[in-house]
Amino acid sequence: MLDEVPNRKVPMPTILFAVPALWPEYRDTLPAALAEAGIADATLVTEARPEDVDYIVYAPASPLQDFAPYTRTKAVLNLWAGVERIVGNPTLTQPLTRMVDPGLTEGMVEWVVGHTLRHHLGMDRHILNPGHVWDPTCPPLARERPVTILGMGALGSACADALRALNFPVTGWSRTEKPGQLHGEHGLRKALSTAQILVTLLPKTPETENLLNADRLALLPQGAAILNPGRGALIDDEALLAALDVGHIGYATLDVFRVEPLPQDHPYWSHPKVTVTPHIAADTRAVTSSRVIAENIRRGQAGEPFLHLVDRQRGY
Amino acid sequence: MLDEVPNRKVPMPTILFAVPALWPEYRDTLPAALAEAGIADATLVTEARPEDVDYIVYAPASPLQDFAPYTRTKAVLNLWAGVERIVGNPTLTQPLTRMVDPGLTEGMVEWVVGHTLRHHLGMDRHILNPGHVWDPTCPPLARERPVTILGMGALGSACADALRALNFPVTGWSRTEKPGQLHGEHGLRKALSTAQILVTLLPKTPETENLLNADRLALLPQGAAILNPGRGALIDDEALLAALDVGHIGYATLDVFRVEPLPQDHPYWSHPKVTVTPHIAADTRAVTSSRVIAENIRRGQAGEPFLHLVDRQRGY
Repeated sequence: MLDEVPNRKVPMPTILFAVPALWPEYRDTLPAALAEAGIADATLVTEARPEDVDYIVYAPASPLQDFAPYTRTKAVLNLWAGVERIVGNPTLTQPLTRMVDPGLTEGMVEWVVGHTLRHHLGMDRHILNPGHVWDPTCPPLARERPVTILGMGALGSACADALRALNFPVTGWSRTEKPGQLHGEHGLRKALSTAQILVTLLPKTPETENLLNADRLALLPQGAAILNPGRGALIDDEALLAALDVGHIGYATLDVFRVEPLPQDHPYWSHPKVTVTPHIAADTRAVTSSRVIAENIRRGQAGEPFLHLVDRQRGY
Repeated sequence: MLDEVPNRKVPMPTILFAVPALWPEYRDTLPAALAEAGIADATLVTEARPEDVDYIVYAPASPLQDFAPYTRTKAVLNLWAGVERIVGNPTLTQPLTRMVDPGLTEGMVEWVVGHTLRHHLGMDRHILNPGHVWDPTCPPLARERPVTILGMGALGSACADALRALNFPVTGWSRTEKPGQLHGEHGLRKALSTAQILVTLLPKTPETENLLNADRLALLPQGAAILNPGRGALIDDEALLAALDVGHIGYATLDVFRVEPLPQDHPYWSHPKVTVTPHIAADTRAVTSSRVIAENIRRGQAGEPFLHLVDRQRGY
């Protein structure tokens, strides 16, 4: 005979996906993540009466600005890591979570390792080979190709690990002192002096703006390649263009710019030694961020604390 | 007082370096490696009377084709991983070893990971972007991009490990049954059916020739990319060109060909969905391969079994 169990069934929640522009990316991944989290029967909608909504999936691009009518909403779940455009909204009294997306780190590692190998292997010679030249000269091995990473936070460290696993000798430089890494101005000069490939992954602060100026670019070995998936402002654009033109810098692959989209008349677009990638190195990814959202809804339904809850006082 | 030890001195061997074209690369590295292995007194020559030769260092480019007069030769040591151009030589009765060169494996891993990431990230869209299109659509993550490797020997396994470290889901297929891998015709169909990127790393044998024929290419998902750093003969070239032309196969990056250098009039050169790389994925590196040759000569002199002995029945 079965024990009698009290009916503890929690009604399935209504989830408002409040960012119409991102719905095409999430319309499949979010239901899949909800199913994985055991809440497949949730009602996931892009429009709803405010009083019916249990959770709001949000991003700065959302038209939703007045949270007051959402009287039963248990949490606003932000798809972005940054919450500076919502945290001060006076109508927002519901708990707010920010995104910590493992996919963002993975995407960055893939971009950095991919473009490092592209330059290391000299791939462009083969991708663009109108003369059909068969030149079987081998590139050196990765173990003979020193790479320097400026900025050894979570992203820089993950890139360093992945490059070292492929035998690249990686030098890391940080603004603050960290064990086993170079730091300070002297350390920066040393880090630049060996970098056949340089990866810039520093945050944008007043101290890092134009960090790569003409003087510092001159410290790089002749023909060095630069990968910038960090922040556009880290590089003095005029100085980089000049260094490319005289051949001191061999190539630059840039993912971030002072103005985005990069204006059509910017010299980077047509420079033969520059590849522009459109700020894709580190984006929130629907598959992994959907799992974070689903996990937080599961927690809300189970009465457990939310992950990545924003502290309103601190602002993040 | 010292014990009396019988004189077990083995006469120093005569080593014929039978590939004149490669002598400039090996003239320094091979003596250094022999010295490291404790056989510095060996006689290393590029010409010798056949009856005086103890070991032959060999490569397909060698003019030596008749092994019958080499009556005292203990082993033919191939500088290449592939032995298909020598294993069927009826005059070859001596043990034959193939090269398993750590530098070769590293180079192969770099080529495979680099071109996998190139296709995964859609790099060509940015390298070749004459319209200056800013399209910030992100690629999927590596964890969403299934890769299949055909051939899970030393090279295939090393590539699988490196790709898995970057989160690619890797399916391995081998001709022979190996734990944790697909095998056989049924396994091959399964391995092909999920491969968004397919890497072919099989040896060339009668069984693997034209393994990727029209029927098998049709099993790949629409738009799959093919990387062939293995052997040109693994692919039916006509079938591949047809599958590229109808768009079933999205791209092919090929490093090996039935005829090398690839003839100037071959359609691969000008095909918009093909990149030709000039047999650079796995070049034997003189420094590391010299050590393998020297170790095998040391083993031969000490009466120990040779490393990487070729199985004549199996063909590799």
